[in-house]
Amino acid sequence: MADESRDLARYVREARWSDLPEQVRHEGRRAFLNWVGCAFGGARHPAVDALLATVTEFAGKPQATVLARSERLDIVNAALINGLSASAYCYDDTELDTIAHPTAAAAAALLALAERQRISGVDFILALILANEVQCRLATALAVSPARCHVGLYMTGYIGAPGIALAVGKLLGLNEQQMVWALGTGACQGAGFRATHASMCSGVIPAYAGRNGLLAGLMAAHDFSCSEHSLEGRNGFLDVFGSPANPAALTDGLGTRYAAMAVAAKPYPSGCFIHPTIDACLELAAADWSDPEQIERVDLTVHPLGLGLTGGQEPKTAYDAQVSVYHWAAAALVHRRAGLEQTMDACVTDPAVVALRQRVRASADETLGPDEARVVLVLKDGRTLRAHVRHCLGSAARPMTDAELEEKFLGQTQGIIPEARAKQLIGQCWAITESDDVSRLAPGVWG
Amino acid sequence: MADESRDLARYVREARWSDLPEQVRHEGRRAFLNWVGCAFGGARHPAVDALLATVTEFAGKPQATVLARSERLDIVNAALINGLSASAYCYDDTELDTIAHPTAAAAAALLALAERQRISGVDFILALILANEVQCRLATALAVSPARCHVGLYMTGYIGAPGIALAVGKLLGLNEQQMVWALGTGACQGAGFRATHASMCSGVIPAYAGRNGLLAGLMAAHDFSCSEHSLEGRNGFLDVFGSPANPAALTDGLGTRYAAMAVAAKPYPSGCFIHPTIDACLELAAADWSDPEQIERVDLTVHPLGLGLTGGQEPKTAYDAQVSVYHWAAAALVHRRAGLEQTMDACVTDPAVVALRQRVRASADETLGPDEARVVLVLKDGRTLRAHVRHCLGSAARPMTDAELEEKFLGQTQGIIPEARAKQLIGQCWAITESDDVSRLAPGVWG
Repeated sequence: MADESRDLARYVREARWSDLPEQVRHEGRRAFLNWVGCAFGGARHPAVDALLATVTEFAGKPQATVLARSERLDIVNAALINGLSASAYCYDDTELDTIAHPTAAAAAALLALAERQRISGVDFILALILANEVQCRLATALAVSPARCHVGLYMTGYIGAPGIALAVGKLLGLNEQQMVWALGTGACQGAGFRATHASMCSGVIPAYAGRNGLLAGLMAAHDFSCSEHSLEGRNGFLDVFGSPANPAALTDGLGTRYAAMAVAAKPYPSGCFIHPTIDACLELAAADWSDPEQIERVDLTVHPLGLGLTGGQEPKTAYDAQVSVYHWAAAALVHRRAGLEQTMDACVTDPAVVALRQRVRASADETLGPDEARVVLVLKDGRTLRAHVRHCLGSAARPMTDAELEEKFLGQTQGIIPEARAKQLIGQCWAITESDDVSRLAPGVWG
Repeated sequence: MADESRDLARYVREARWSDLPEQVRHEGRRAFLNWVGCAFGGARHPAVDALLATVTEFAGKPQATVLARSERLDIVNAALINGLSASAYCYDDTELDTIAHPTAAAAAALLALAERQRISGVDFILALILANEVQCRLATALAVSPARCHVGLYMTGYIGAPGIALAVGKLLGLNEQQMVWALGTGACQGAGFRATHASMCSGVIPAYAGRNGLLAGLMAAHDFSCSEHSLEGRNGFLDVFGSPANPAALTDGLGTRYAAMAVAAKPYPSGCFIHPTIDACLELAAADWSDPEQIERVDLTVHPLGLGLTGGQEPKTAYDAQVSVYHWAAAALVHRRAGLEQTMDACVTDPAVVALRQRVRASADETLGPDEARVVLVLKDGRTLRAHVRHCLGSAARPMTDAELEEKFLGQTQGIIPEARAKQLIGQCWAITESDDVSRLAPGVWG
């Protein structure tokens, strides 16, 4: 019988920092820098307030930092809250072929663990890279042709716990059998569907994945058992969620080809299929017109999933707007920006944005890629302006540069910490692989 | 748009004890009595030890009782552990059409909540009945023709959290909007697949469901939001897990027809499709032969799922044996009993059981019902003994009597509490609906 569960467990257990190409190592640092910014930027989201208020009553001893907040929680709840902060604004990162957002949950779980036991920066970034690698491979095995799965599966919720459980298990020094169990105990908690978008649950599903993955690793350390073939077995992860799945994607080229290199930081706090439209609208916002009133009509042509998953034309709240391509087209044209401010209620109800939103039309074109969009601006003076984005910023083909990541970070931390401190923090994130104790960054810097 | 999510939320919120027929009320008490016995009987299972060792490090203030143990935990972790105790030996209850086991998680979550706020016995049993009712309706909407779903979905893991979240929400006094959110927050944590059978994860999936449902209710009390149409919406619970689903099953006859009446306590600690085989073997064990060595061959004919989900012929551990129809046929014939003792490693490796197991053959017959089996005993002296069980004990057609439930309870608590105390506890369970504070039973009785 095929044994992908054990193959993955063994790979993660044995992988070493010295095996990784420099490009992969740097991508790990980039993912971490981006994650810290997201966690800071999301730490005051109303969903974080509500969940913190809930778990504070039940939380254990204050072992771990909640980023950008004064509360301290046990590491399991800290992983939950920091994962929610990093996910709350849909601003984290994406593997576009599978619509997976791997880093938010993984970094939250691993950072919490680093406040329980000393973990060096190299071990930490290695574990993060491996967590993302397993997540991306699980997602590919479910969702990339010849595999197929229901588009409504909230992919991050399925792949998160098993991938994170293995990375946690590695840091805990589990033996191979325990790693197999950790993987399964994580995998069987895979959960979530996309009907929860446009609500607080959108961000909490990755957060649960981080908590569940951390707990699965810790359980395996106490010999909590799971099946030997949780992924590839009959009635297992692939059998149940793939229709069909592609088990070979789990292990093909493992250790030489890095699936996680396709994970790209998000340039805008919105559903990822909206990004090419935003790119195009920002390009057109810089063209020769000044008042949104001059715009007669905005015609969007997007990938079918761009419309299918993000179709709300009349968002009422920030949650609806997060996944409304209509909102983001109007907001990018009116505000000429697409940052956190444009995802807030004040922008969603801004009369100029509302008025233009009603003149946005969108249609799907299946010949377009998921990172591609065409936008036509019809002005009242008779002119027609066009933009065609072939690969949006934040796609695998056109990832954000290090400088763009730093700029995003400064935007996310604005109003939360002074700019000088944010810049210092950026430096610490880039230098994390020189640290011999990741938690030492925490007291002065995270909290 | 259909609005089953809100319809269910409203129904649970408004349902009253006085609405329930006496038969339904009594079924609630029976489910509770059976649950208490299961939680006692499972409290020393190795999986409980392992999970307790894990969560103790992170648990919050000691609010709640862990049944039959000295530890006390915060209510969220208490719900988790008690749910695992009640599930660990597969001895709880079943809705056979959907292979759902609703009470283990529900009672664990509700009892934990009763140690946070005063809950009367009537409110407690009402909430338990409602939790099971919603769970059974969700399962029916996914799995009963014209609905269909992957048999590998661990049904209890999908229906548990949403059903329990509503019951918890009712006891918390949530408003209708919060109830809709609680339902969705529970539903989007639905998880589990059957490849985890024959491991500790088999029992923990219901346990997670109880913890998640309790947490979902508590989150909704803090206005943690979810979508309005988590069940019936596009990319929602039914769309993603049903292929197709039957939304009408959620609400048809709600308040007049009780789907939860089909939940039956399990007479044997094994996968439910094994029960008719055990019944038949116990019948044949009483026939005129004395030594298992006299048996030439045992031929089983069972429902296809009986073989498909429980097919392991050479179980090595108690976990394998739990779902091995071969093991239980041999154990019931050799030991002439099928209780907790027959699910232990000592029985799995008992030479007489192992020897007979190798002479058991099983075949599937799709004309048989899932609660039906035929067993033929071929003796070495040339005789052939036959048994045909049309509806096994513990099926909806032939539920255990109150007296049989009490006997099961005494077996589960044997060696854990004195028999006199167990009998007193049985009396308290039957009288629970006269209590004005369910938690008062806890300190002296549960712990």
